[in-house]
Amino acid sequence: MAMPRLALVPGEPAGVGPELCVRLAQRPRNDCSLVAFADPATLEAAAQALGLPLNLLHEDHPAHAPGDLPLRMFPNVNAVAFGQPDPRNAGAVIDALRQAATGCLGGAFAGMVTGPVHKATINQGGIAYTGTTELLAEHAGRKVVMMLANDIVRVALATTHLPLRQVPDAIDAGLLRHVLHTTHAALRTDFGIAAPVIAVLGLNPHAGEDGHLGREEIDTIVPVLDELRGQGLDLVGPLPADTAFLPAKLRGFDAVLAMYHDQGLPVLKYSGFERAVNLTLGLPYPRVAVDHGTALDLAGRGLADPSSLEAAVATCARMAAQRPAPAPL
Amino acid sequence: MAMPRLALVPGEPAGVGPELCVRLAQRPRNDCSLVAFADPATLEAAAQALGLPLNLLHEDHPAHAPGDLPLRMFPNVNAVAFGQPDPRNAGAVIDALRQAATGCLGGAFAGMVTGPVHKATINQGGIAYTGTTELLAEHAGRKVVMMLANDIVRVALATTHLPLRQVPDAIDAGLLRHVLHTTHAALRTDFGIAAPVIAVLGLNPHAGEDGHLGREEIDTIVPVLDELRGQGLDLVGPLPADTAFLPAKLRGFDAVLAMYHDQGLPVLKYSGFERAVNLTLGLPYPRVAVDHGTALDLAGRGLADPSSLEAAVATCARMAAQRPAPAPL
Repeated sequence: MAMPRLALVPGEPAGVGPELCVRLAQRPRNDCSLVAFADPATLEAAAQALGLPLNLLHEDHPAHAPGDLPLRMFPNVNAVAFGQPDPRNAGAVIDALRQAATGCLGGAFAGMVTGPVHKATINQGGIAYTGTTELLAEHAGRKVVMMLANDIVRVALATTHLPLRQVPDAIDAGLLRHVLHTTHAALRTDFGIAAPVIAVLGLNPHAGEDGHLGREEIDTIVPVLDELRGQGLDLVGPLPADTAFLPAKLRGFDAVLAMYHDQGLPVLKYSGFERAVNLTLGLPYPRVAVDHGTALDLAGRGLADPSSLEAAVATCARMAAQRPAPAPL
Repeated sequence: MAMPRLALVPGEPAGVGPELCVRLAQRPRNDCSLVAFADPATLEAAAQALGLPLNLLHEDHPAHAPGDLPLRMFPNVNAVAFGQPDPRNAGAVIDALRQAATGCLGGAFAGMVTGPVHKATINQGGIAYTGTTELLAEHAGRKVVMMLANDIVRVALATTHLPLRQVPDAIDAGLLRHVLHTTHAALRTDFGIAAPVIAVLGLNPHAGEDGHLGREEIDTIVPVLDELRGQGLDLVGPLPADTAFLPAKLRGFDAVLAMYHDQGLPVLKYSGFERAVNLTLGLPYPRVAVDHGTALDLAGRGLADPSSLEAAVATCARMAAQRPAPAPL
């Protein structure tokens, strides 16, 4: 079986993304082949800063030796200065993401791995952008679910970057159905778990404590869980968030659905930030991102830890291998 | 120096509290002396169920041998059946807590350690009760702060058992001032930390991301932190909750102030539930509770883990020893 071919988009050129890609190119892979969607001069500057070999190849040429990296070029307008994002390069960053997405939708690529993007810089460049997950969802015309995962726990989020005040009203039956169906399907398709068990957290402390601490569990969450159980989903909860993450309990769950960002992510990051990745579920292709930012203060200094990007590539390769091969044209 | 004398209140007699007290009495202590505020028949039934020696002493007699336990009697109305809470015994549970609090306020005891209380049973017994923390606060006429702690992290909560929907409006400048002053004072007085560093989480994801994800940080939290820094408090934040708990960051903080229950407690419980304790800051005396419930399904079977009660007693003893001795009468 041919190895899946993945699009690798480093993201913000002035951040740590380019040097992490250079590090990744130093080791031969036996799980996937990678094509970088990036500015060649930036990758070469990163390689030079790190003192590592880099041999940029045409995207159709396979990597053989340490430093080989097949590339599709997205030239920056301005030469990059590590640590100093330039809004004039925003177009190249976004173009690379869109082209990679198009390549995945068309079947030329089996999945996409992305580095960190600097949101403010993209917006300063005159491009409306709230996040790569949102960009890819809109590009594919899909509603998606954000999942963060490490080797301890997978956390799916019912809501993501929403002021806390808006969270309770955002949690409705339609949203929960979508998020749970999407998460269940992804655990089967992308992770090969035949009968996934999903723990669902309550919205309120103690999952509402029988209505004493809020009624959203009784009015919204429990009825949806019952409905979806009737459709065959294996759902546990709603559970109190503080005890759902006890290590002994976690071992019984294939994923945890948190109702909001700060309910689900602290344990994930505490338990293994370096190896954490950010997955977008519900796209027609697997997409995995690093779980860290652009780290402008580290960029170009050879100090950035490639563990998350390495984990993102390995995860995306496994997911791509799990998926049924696309039908021949 | 005489060892501090602590009141030990097992809580719900049908739960695991009594047997945990019996286990505790098997080992001599060199950090404190304990007086149980409890029903003698229940303790004896627990000892019998566990096959452990128990020798109940007058409260003024010191423990010498394994099984010795000084006692102040609060007889149950009905004989206890482990696992089956009886609302007719609610009065004895609450009397024991109130008497222990009175003993601490009067100086006869240097602190209080409590086991788990079964809220519904107390209410069914006709006694208004929302929690032991609230009961002790009202008894002492103090506003208090709930802190959960293990050997990894101390988490203070700005709000506790409140529906999530009510949290944003509950976080105001007066509350934050009270909670931060109380936490700062307790870290100095009870933990002996001369210049404590407190990390303060934001209310919103990414601590509001400069107002893009909510304005409570800008409008309320930041001004209070600046005000209190001017008074000499060492405060870090507001920090995004997901990354504030990274192990490397935690090592720089003496406590973390979370804005609400499910933001602060999942990491605490994940990182060391067995050894976690629940502290009430702001009382005139140290009070430490176990960080688990009544575990009715385990009660009387000898299966309950005494680690949290053991940690609670050790913590309370340390806190009592830290406090300046009360002035002689």
